[in-house]
Amino acid sequence: MTAFSVNGRSYAPPSRPVVVVCIDGCADEYLNAALARRRMPHLERMACHGYRGLARAALPTFTNVNNAAIVTGMPPAVTGISGNYFLDPETGEEVMMNSSRFLRCETILAVAARAGRRVGMVTAKDKLREILSHKLLGIAFSAEKAAEVQQEIHGIADVEPLVGRPAPRIYSADASLYVLDAGVALLRENLADFLYLSLTDYMQHKYTPEAPEALDFYAAMDRCFGQLLELGAVLGLTADHGMNAKQLADGTPHVLYIESLLRDKFHADIRVICPITDPYVVHHGALGSFVTVHLPESVSVDAAAQYLRTLDGVTEVYDRPAAARLLELPPDRIGDLCVLSGRNVVVGRTPEHHDLSQLAGGLRSHGGRYEELVPLVLSEPLSPTYLAKASGDPRNFDIFDFTCNGGQSS
Amino acid sequence: MTAFSVNGRSYAPPSRPVVVVCIDGCADEYLNAALARRRMPHLERMACHGYRGLARAALPTFTNVNNAAIVTGMPPAVTGISGNYFLDPETGEEVMMNSSRFLRCETILAVAARAGRRVGMVTAKDKLREILSHKLLGIAFSAEKAAEVQQEIHGIADVEPLVGRPAPRIYSADASLYVLDAGVALLRENLADFLYLSLTDYMQHKYTPEAPEALDFYAAMDRCFGQLLELGAVLGLTADHGMNAKQLADGTPHVLYIESLLRDKFHADIRVICPITDPYVVHHGALGSFVTVHLPESVSVDAAAQYLRTLDGVTEVYDRPAAARLLELPPDRIGDLCVLSGRNVVVGRTPEHHDLSQLAGGLRSHGGRYEELVPLVLSEPLSPTYLAKASGDPRNFDIFDFTCNGGQSS
Repeated sequence: MTAFSVNGRSYAPPSRPVVVVCIDGCADEYLNAALARRRMPHLERMACHGYRGLARAALPTFTNVNNAAIVTGMPPAVTGISGNYFLDPETGEEVMMNSSRFLRCETILAVAARAGRRVGMVTAKDKLREILSHKLLGIAFSAEKAAEVQQEIHGIADVEPLVGRPAPRIYSADASLYVLDAGVALLRENLADFLYLSLTDYMQHKYTPEAPEALDFYAAMDRCFGQLLELGAVLGLTADHGMNAKQLADGTPHVLYIESLLRDKFHADIRVICPITDPYVVHHGALGSFVTVHLPESVSVDAAAQYLRTLDGVTEVYDRPAAARLLELPPDRIGDLCVLSGRNVVVGRTPEHHDLSQLAGGLRSHGGRYEELVPLVLSEPLSPTYLAKASGDPRNFDIFDFTCNGGQSS
Repeated sequence: MTAFSVNGRSYAPPSRPVVVVCIDGCADEYLNAALARRRMPHLERMACHGYRGLARAALPTFTNVNNAAIVTGMPPAVTGISGNYFLDPETGEEVMMNSSRFLRCETILAVAARAGRRVGMVTAKDKLREILSHKLLGIAFSAEKAAEVQQEIHGIADVEPLVGRPAPRIYSADASLYVLDAGVALLRENLADFLYLSLTDYMQHKYTPEAPEALDFYAAMDRCFGQLLELGAVLGLTADHGMNAKQLADGTPHVLYIESLLRDKFHADIRVICPITDPYVVHHGALGSFVTVHLPESVSVDAAAQYLRTLDGVTEVYDRPAAARLLELPPDRIGDLCVLSGRNVVVGRTPEHHDLSQLAGGLRSHGGRYEELVPLVLSEPLSPTYLAKASGDPRNFDIFDFTCNGGQSS
């Protein structure tokens, strides 16, 4: 058994293969809908014989924020990753936060590899790969770019022959299923024994839990979970965030354009950052339930906060110190205010900044408080200590702790 | 078909029996645990052929608050019921809020009865009966006092022979099952055709979702749901609040004594009200995840709020106007501040005010944000309009709307 410590936390994984899966955008309702229809027999077994409960994600409930938290075991205040996108105070420019240069601590994956585990990390989108594979001596590739892997960069030369099919389109169910199939193949071929598999939420953005497409997708995932278990894996499942319909009763997107509203109110050059922004916006139009606001000196933080709290659909408004404390965010990587919106409400910049024309099936998105609670599922029964921990306030970024250390035989 | 309006909302219930059940303290995890073990076949059928999702309860997530909201279809700002217990500004005294004199609007039950429906209302605890049966011409009794019903007060003379067993002890699973069995009997004997059945959360306070006692309890409830459906009912299920373990890793209660902390900090006569307080405190020691704070003039609201936000475990602090707006509370029935605590944290007055000695099995409680999302389950498939509503931001106090108006044939 290889034990190691990362960021002050200890991990003593069993020698069996350890597999952690982040099911991007997996609101618990998706599991409920598929389980009720008996489409996930392996998950059902895990729920009955292992553990199924809920864990709290990191806020804002976005992909980069939570994947960085999961692979480090730390909240965003420590990882430094507060969004997909932020206004860099050093340069004054808006930049993507998907470079490992923004990551402020080590990853469990890199340290596990140094401690002798054969680590495999597979993401759906390539944007995540670079940041999560920071200093990782192991296998790390994305489904999106599976056709382009190189031994010296990705730790593996041929992914498509391994998985048995070509790289998927990124806007597809297969973008996620390919990640899981790659994980199964890595175990089956004995190329790795410590896996992190991070999926994409295209399907959850597009389909409700009861939609046949979603049910088929979850059934297909469940077959992969079965294969991983069959190969002897200890399996831990969680999500980066949930997913809710952000629509009015007539099906149109329910959007508050915070930058427009603030500019009209205060007649000043106010800048709103939407940290959900990433290169893949087809399915959400860069609209989520969390934004940060940068105010010029002429506008008082309190006055802006008070005004925002009067807006229907705004649920929480924090100034920088309160957000750092209550939302566990890095104060230098957020604006003067953080604004969260309701279960069915998104916040954006101005109408011109968001393309809603491609949201054919309606807007489903995340980022706020109502996407905070996500599944926590373990294949092994928990020890009494970890059962107590699970029924307290477990976090999705405790998933490696639970999977490595939580078993009764650990 | 009898149609009627209450508090500006319209209800057109089908002529079939309509049954709404409030499963007190039913965090969604209870349904998950029982469904995964296939202990709730009728609920499983409702989830697959009707609807199962999540609805948002009213804050604070307490029993009186949410039962009052459910039977009126209105948030606490309209009902006036902001807790089980409050500091009456007219008298300066702390009083229970379980009298209908505190209710500020009509109930769906009373209006349905006036419109010609034969209404039956059964609660587990007698404390709720009086408030919920406000102006109701129909049947209204509690399981707790089932032995003492009188025709002129309760609209029924003999409950124990009807149900077939004596009134249950209030601290028992049967306190809730008796309510459901009474509902079944009222339909079977054709004594009512419009039912509200409100259970008690003793079992959820005491047992985790996976505990055999909880699973047996939910299986027994499911048999009653099956009987109600067999009798032709349109069935709607929701909860007043969820339930979480409020414990440290060692199993001891995780309590912040807000009154003690504020008095130490500000050296002033600060008064904290715990609105969870009721005559039945064995299972929670009057500790929940929400309190209100009454400050003397010598202490600034902002200073107290700022201080409270620095406390580990405090998650949200609102002054009166913000609480009225963001939490939909009646401003004259809350303190100067409202304080919410984390998923595994409760807030109380002083150590002397709370008896923890009887919390043998550990503290499970509610009242805050992490008990806000509760099940919403309907026996009938929803119309497209109500499906859109359900996937937006449905409230638990929309349950009569969903049950009466939501069906595809409605």
